[in-house]
Amino acid sequence: MLSFESDYVEGAHELILKRLTETNLEQLSGYGTDPYCAQAKEKIREACECPHADIYFLAGGTQTNQTVIDGMLASYEGVIAAETGHVSVHEAGAIEYTGHKVITLPQHEGKIRADELEFCLRTFWEDESHEHMVFPGMVYISHPTEYGTLYTRAELEHLSAICEAHQIPLYLDGARLGYGLMSRQTDVTLPLIADCCDAFYIGGTKVGALCGEAVVFPRRHAPKHFLTTIKQHGALLAKGRLLGIQFDTLFTDGLYLKLSHHAIEMAELLKKGLQECGCTFYLASPTNQQFITLPDEMLDRLRKHVVCSFWEKPDDDHTVIRLATSWATKEADVLQFLKILKELIRC
Amino acid sequence: MLSFESDYVEGAHELILKRLTETNLEQLSGYGTDPYCAQAKEKIREACECPHADIYFLAGGTQTNQTVIDGMLASYEGVIAAETGHVSVHEAGAIEYTGHKVITLPQHEGKIRADELEFCLRTFWEDESHEHMVFPGMVYISHPTEYGTLYTRAELEHLSAICEAHQIPLYLDGARLGYGLMSRQTDVTLPLIADCCDAFYIGGTKVGALCGEAVVFPRRHAPKHFLTTIKQHGALLAKGRLLGIQFDTLFTDGLYLKLSHHAIEMAELLKKGLQECGCTFYLASPTNQQFITLPDEMLDRLRKHVVCSFWEKPDDDHTVIRLATSWATKEADVLQFLKILKELIRC
Amino acid sequence: MLSFESDYVEGAHELILKRLTETNLEQLSGYGTDPYCAQAKEKIREACECPHADIYFLAGGTQTNQTVIDGMLASYEGVIAAETGHVSVHEAGAIEYTGHKVITLPQHEGKIRADELEFCLRTFWEDESHEHMVFPGMVYISHPTEYGTLYTRAELEHLSAICEAHQIPLYLDGARLGYGLMSRQTDVTLPLIADCCDAFYIGGTKVGALCGEAVVFPRRHAPKHFLTTIKQHGALLAKGRLLGIQFDTLFTDGLYLKLSHHAIEMAELLKKGLQECGCTFYLASPTNQQFITLPDEMLDRLRKHVVCSFWEKPDDDHTVIRLATSWATKEADVLQFLKILKELIRC
Amino acid sequence: MLSFESDYVEGAHELILKRLTETNLEQLSGYGTDPYCAQAKEKIREACECPHADIYFLAGGTQTNQTVIDGMLASYEGVIAAETGHVSVHEAGAIEYTGHKVITLPQHEGKIRADELEFCLRTFWEDESHEHMVFPGMVYISHPTEYGTLYTRAELEHLSAICEAHQIPLYLDGARLGYGLMSRQTDVTLPLIADCCDAFYIGGTKVGALCGEAVVFPRRHAPKHFLTTIKQHGALLAKGRLLGIQFDTLFTDGLYLKLSHHAIEMAELLKKGLQECGCTFYLASPTNQQFITLPDEMLDRLRKHVVCSFWEKPDDDHTVIRLATSWATKEADVLQFLKILKELIRC
Repeated sequence: MLSFESDYVEGAHELILKRLTETNLEQLSGYGTDPYCAQAKEKIREACECPHADIYFLAGGTQTNQTVIDGMLASYEGVIAAETGHVSVHEAGAIEYTGHKVITLPQHEGKIRADELEFCLRTFWEDESHEHMVFPGMVYISHPTEYGTLYTRAELEHLSAICEAHQIPLYLDGARLGYGLMSRQTDVTLPLIADCCDAFYIGGTKVGALCGEAVVFPRRHAPKHFLTTIKQHGALLAKGRLLGIQFDTLFTDGLYLKLSHHAIEMAELLKKGLQECGCTFYLASPTNQQFITLPDEMLDRLRKHVVCSFWEKPDDDHTVIRLATSWATKEADVLQFLKILKELIRC
Repeated sequence: MLSFESDYVEGAHELILKRLTETNLEQLSGYGTDPYCAQAKEKIREACECPHADIYFLAGGTQTNQTVIDGMLASYEGVIAAETGHVSVHEAGAIEYTGHKVITLPQHEGKIRADELEFCLRTFWEDESHEHMVFPGMVYISHPTEYGTLYTRAELEHLSAICEAHQIPLYLDGARLGYGLMSRQTDVTLPLIADCCDAFYIGGTKVGALCGEAVVFPRRHAPKHFLTTIKQHGALLAKGRLLGIQFDTLFTDGLYLKLSHHAIEMAELLKKGLQECGCTFYLASPTNQQFITLPDEMLDRLRKHVVCSFWEKPDDDHTVIRLATSWATKEADVLQFLKILKELIRC
Repeated sequence: MLSFESDYVEGAHELILKRLTETNLEQLSGYGTDPYCAQAKEKIREACECPHADIYFLAGGTQTNQTVIDGMLASYEGVIAAETGHVSVHEAGAIEYTGHKVITLPQHEGKIRADELEFCLRTFWEDESHEHMVFPGMVYISHPTEYGTLYTRAELEHLSAICEAHQIPLYLDGARLGYGLMSRQTDVTLPLIADCCDAFYIGGTKVGALCGEAVVFPRRHAPKHFLTTIKQHGALLAKGRLLGIQFDTLFTDGLYLKLSHHAIEMAELLKKGLQECGCTFYLASPTNQQFITLPDEMLDRLRKHVVCSFWEKPDDDHTVIRLATSWATKEADVLQFLKILKELIRC
Repeated sequence: MLSFESDYVEGAHELILKRLTETNLEQLSGYGTDPYCAQAKEKIREACECPHADIYFLAGGTQTNQTVIDGMLASYEGVIAAETGHVSVHEAGAIEYTGHKVITLPQHEGKIRADELEFCLRTFWEDESHEHMVFPGMVYISHPTEYGTLYTRAELEHLSAICEAHQIPLYLDGARLGYGLMSRQTDVTLPLIADCCDAFYIGGTKVGALCGEAVVFPRRHAPKHFLTTIKQHGALLAKGRLLGIQFDTLFTDGLYLKLSHHAIEMAELLKKGLQECGCTFYLASPTNQQFITLPDEMLDRLRKHVVCSFWEKPDDDHTVIRLATSWATKEADVLQFLKILKELIRC
């Protein structure tokens, strides 16, 4: 059975397991105070060109969003996000659980638009009864988005300028950041993100780690006593080494970008094949997630050979599915998948 | 430098790393739905003699306590715990963060007493203004306690009977459960715990895993939609395999108990040596954590060779330290430590 | 200066002040255990034709919504509401503050539609990843809505049937319930509401009381230990008499409905006058709140004589305003207002 | 039946009802923006000798404590209080509900001691693992305490100095503040409290109002956007006039202190009588609450004539009761009570 179900169906890149094994019996102090964490942070600072960035490692994406957003917001503030943002839909209310509203903006292929953000902020402050409403306290974007799409440099800078004008932080969820950075159609770099955002995280779980996300506060200080906030959220691993060693490995010799590059190559190969098959793309994704619309009948047959993710049903007879490549995708699997698909279409 | 700082200074048992490596490229579905999680649960059910237990894997102890306690309590309820309980002191308010009070009872070498629990519950219900107070909604105990001490079978059964009489669940924090089960001075077994408690967790992080705790609901059902509660707390790992494979390994061929047994052997060797040195024990611990009181002057010299944990200062000139053995402790290190200590004492 | 700013610009109906004064020196026990609370509850049960209803008095609307919704939802559940619902917009995130998401549906003149509710519930349960999403745990409607509109008997029954089919409660925010019940265009009665809803509140603050809302759980039991939940939310008044005496007065000799009727008569008089002036109505409201669109220039001149509420700006040159009548509105004031308006229009 | 059950068994002072009635039909804007609120604040600023104080009106004590404490603390902080403090025991976990731990200190007749506070703060910061613990973020005291006792000027100044040294605010719960200020045995004045505390509230509910507490931030600014925080807690009354008019009345011509003075006179009369009867005082209270220990048998007979509050049972045959006087207590009732008691004792 082939699987393009998600970018987290395999374990970790082999170098990570190798490093975990090599360092396994070293006696290291806990809670992220070990030298591997320190080393990893230093390498991330370098990659971001932010020598003074505050960096923290957490285990997963929802946990990271919850802890960072709660840590950065005042009680009376909420976070602005696209209506399709991960925090809006697929985190089981983890943000609201911490007392904060997710204020939604319309989504455009997963992205928010600067003009709509500006309008939202302006009308809030102009509203005579805004003291009876949730204050917009920060802006959340995902990059790549849940639809695999990317902000351009200009878009990011525009959003950043609006946030700065309204004195609220811009936070970027980079669960799949590597795949965004290595896209063939992007002008956004890690230093640019560090320049535009007040906080962001570099996703490990979906880019070759067993688990782990690196939160970066590039420009401003991390929230005061953020380690305690992490602990309070149940998000502080005793064996911080597990995260430190993984990120140290990912940020040594550019492994993080190499892995991401591979996933993009595989996605482009897949995309080309899908185009040749005449598939209907749900939208144009420049990253590792591809969305196509299939007749249900064909999907049923395809699923005998391939695992893929249900996305939505545009009508009674069709289904949008997601096909994800990753750092671990084999070229042979992509070709095999395309072969199967072609045969199905031919019938 | 020797280290007896804690039982989480090394990585994981080698078999765990081996299994992670062997299974690494298998394509598995996420969020704990993989076959290794299923297998591990089955083995734990067997070890607990609870064929119908609900089992969930979480990453760390504070996270587990927070999620389980919040999941089991009604909003108006709090959790009863020893004033020295981990939830009372060292979780940065993770329980209160979820809206619940930790109602404290006096501690007796880290344990709560059944008569004091009974008195607390009875006086609550008798109090005419109890509707203005936090309802005691469950009882939390740690076993071994934060002081390394253990409840006896009789004590556990007594606490369990009181909880049942008052219709509130008994929850056991087993962060170091293996070390309790393998103590030379215990009559408590895993099936007994499953019999006495409504929920408990089997600690992995401190007993040979990289991370991971296995929550068991042996008698009653897990809280409704508990998976969503886990997600909402940011505690659901995408790669659930990381936890499943570790617990599958720990519960294959009795590895969990073997590792625990080793730590106990090392602790007993250490204890014997400390006794021979004439050390003052802070209390009599039958598990892997040993607490001794040293003159500060001697401690300063000891710390040039050994890392150990500060516990408390009974007076201006003395310090209580904790020495922890673990699944990874080497006999040679214990002997070397004792040699150093003896030399220091002789001076 | 005339005021149609809101239905809470005056104090309380004179009978309420009279009763508060007459009973003032009676020594009564606190927290709602006095005989006036008991009496008031009995009269409300009668008015609702629900002899076994659980009834609680709280001080204000947001407090009531927050306490009832939080009390009725499980942690992993959210409340469905119109995007314009009071809980969605104008309660400063009071619902999210208690950890629950407000799941929004489109609004149609302030109302939600049964088919859209049904679709929302059905697609949630069909979604393969619904365990990663907030569970819809109850439905919130306001009646009259924030736009003064009303559900019909058929609409209420339909919503109720859908809730019952999905086993989630229907909750009705009756901040202005009296004005809905006395509308000339309604077939909804208090017993019907009690029949259709699992919880609702009868608003006092906006219908003649100094403060106070009466929460009714007509069909099912109130949430367990709800008094403690009220206390925990800081919503339990020591002098419960303040609420009991007010509701006892409002539900004696039909005062509540009489006051409401008066407001409706005044609103109809106002509406007729506005129609005669050729005013553009923002929507057709059958209750005490009327919404009209005025050119900004005219509004500026009007505001020299009349206080009214800004509602929204449909374009750069016009403003929608709200004119509210109440139990205390004087006929002479309505006529005077219409006279001023006519003069302004004539100019 | 006589009642010394509490200081909130009657309604409000007659002048308050008179003012409410006189102003009843004035059309005033809502949410505390009316001129009576402004006037009342000005008079309170004068009484506190704090011309720049921020002042807010809330409805009740638990609500006030919850909103102020939550508003002033960072997420990772808790509030220090006596183990018998109202926030520790009788607020149904309202503080924990907002995510904050109540860190308890021993109580000495209801008070905390400066040396113990200092020790608590010092040891927290010295503890190597304090980042894993709840940060002490403010100090809560009640004055008078739940036992009717009072801090001296020296004690208050000492506590204030410790708080300042540790840069955490001191907050005083003045639910019964008037009775403290009018005690015959106090050197504490309102300006002194304003000088020593960073926030405090002047209790209305127990000192002659129907409801209402006035929160004062004398020295530093109120928490940012505190009105929104109040709204978010469901604590903002639409008819703010209800609170404004009451406090305006209480702070006109010294009514607040006059009412308090009367209660103290009645308490002293009562105390003298109790002493003459040879009653055992549970402790020496200089305010309106008196605590005596009675044989259960005598209490049973007393309760046929008098309502009083159960406090605790020191042994199987005795009960501590609380007798409270108030602004409304009649001298004749005190004398009648003493007569009854004397007769019972004589038997």
